[in-house]
Amino acid sequence: MTNRIKLTISYDGTAYNGYQIQPNGRTVQEELQRALQKLHKGRAVHVTGSGRTDAGVHAAGQVVHFDTDLSIPLDRWPKALNALLPNDVRTLRAEEVPSTFHARYGVERKTYVYRVDNNVTPDVFRRNFVLHESRPLSISTMKEAAALLIGKHDFTSFCSARSEVKDKVRELYKIDIDMANNEVTFLFEGNGFLYNMVRILTGTLLEIGRGERDIHEVVEILEAKDRDAAGKTAAPQGLYLWKVYYSK
Amino acid sequence: MTNRIKLTISYDGTAYNGYQIQPNGRTVQEELQRALQKLHKGRAVHVTGSGRTDAGVHAAGQVVHFDTDLSIPLDRWPKALNALLPNDVRTLRAEEVPSTFHARYGVERKTYVYRVDNNVTPDVFRRNFVLHESRPLSISTMKEAAALLIGKHDFTSFCSARSEVKDKVRELYKIDIDMANNEVTFLFEGNGFLYNMVRILTGTLLEIGRGERDIHEVVEILEAKDRDAAGKTAAPQGLYLWKVYYSK
Repeated sequence: MTNRIKLTISYDGTAYNGYQIQPNGRTVQEELQRALQKLHKGRAVHVTGSGRTDAGVHAAGQVVHFDTDLSIPLDRWPKALNALLPNDVRTLRAEEVPSTFHARYGVERKTYVYRVDNNVTPDVFRRNFVLHESRPLSISTMKEAAALLIGKHDFTSFCSARSEVKDKVRELYKIDIDMANNEVTFLFEGNGFLYNMVRILTGTLLEIGRGERDIHEVVEILEAKDRDAAGKTAAPQGLYLWKVYYSK
Repeated sequence: MTNRIKLTISYDGTAYNGYQIQPNGRTVQEELQRALQKLHKGRAVHVTGSGRTDAGVHAAGQVVHFDTDLSIPLDRWPKALNALLPNDVRTLRAEEVPSTFHARYGVERKTYVYRVDNNVTPDVFRRNFVLHESRPLSISTMKEAAALLIGKHDFTSFCSARSEVKDKVRELYKIDIDMANNEVTFLFEGNGFLYNMVRILTGTLLEIGRGERDIHEVVEILEAKDRDAAGKTAAPQGLYLWKVYYSK
């Protein structure tokens, strides 16, 4: 009998060339499949993720699924997998799901977090987990700009020019921006995100927060439908795939 | 003219074989001296630290001093050094001090912090910065035991047997223990600390917190004056040299 298992996993992306298997460099998917293959006595197991994350990007709650004929009790899966995974990838939770569940096609919405260390000297303990920005940032200005981005828009300007996706309309439900202990946290929630979208949104908001662009430029950027109209792509190490939501 | 400069530095100890120069492995002192030698056009500059830290141990506020004939404005020293240091060592502050100041002999008291991740699954982002302990810990029990350690004692039982220091009497001013977001933080303040003392104190308190030892055993351990009487030495990656205080 075959069961479909949904895993919630977390990883430090520093040492990875992203989530998805590719010809060059280590990937998280490869490590997951390697661990599952060992558990399945050498049989290959394919893992489907909710989406990819880029090189250096982290995940607090990536979701994947796979099919298995092993009868391991659900609460034992995380320990069994973690014993075989490198210590920068952890399985947090395993759930049994119907065979109709699909980690990628079933996504209803996702949240991403972007962390910025706004200390003058970069915090040595956070250097792989935040973007360092020593210049002053206006939180209120960034919040005003963020409010103009909420809703259903064509996000072509906030998508990498290398993307091959045709339909670039997405809905952003919210952007929360908070500052505590000299760290600025951006939380983005939406029904879907384009390639590099969160990093370009963050890079653009940071330019506004530093006073280099006006708040209302975000409207013009959206209307331009041109990647060159938006700000720089913020560095990968500040970004976290935070949580993936599925319809019941 | 020669000036004495006091630096406050922070480092991620993960990649270092401790603070102090030694025949094998990278050390923080070596990196500092290498950066200073470059600034001094090839002349060797000796750096004196407040004390050593072990391999894998971190520092939030290590203090060092050195003498220089360069006339770099004080506020430019951190930037100049940070440009030459590896990114896991950061200079936070530079101060000019009298030639009588000594980073090691002038120490009045020090604080150390020890961090324990008490989540069931280790947090992947903190794995090099905390000790992971999945078993439940009683904070109130550890606090009671900690209170019995405060004061002036012969800490032989809490000192590595490899130490060659003769006088093992030290005064502990306080041990604060707090739990927040499943992380337990121990803060130790004292007039001086023996080799491995904070790690053995923490290891012993954790055994009490897990219910493996009674609270009052700490008194017997102190009286035994024998390293074998105390608990295990807690792992290095949870420990931080936090702050070093000097008499005015």
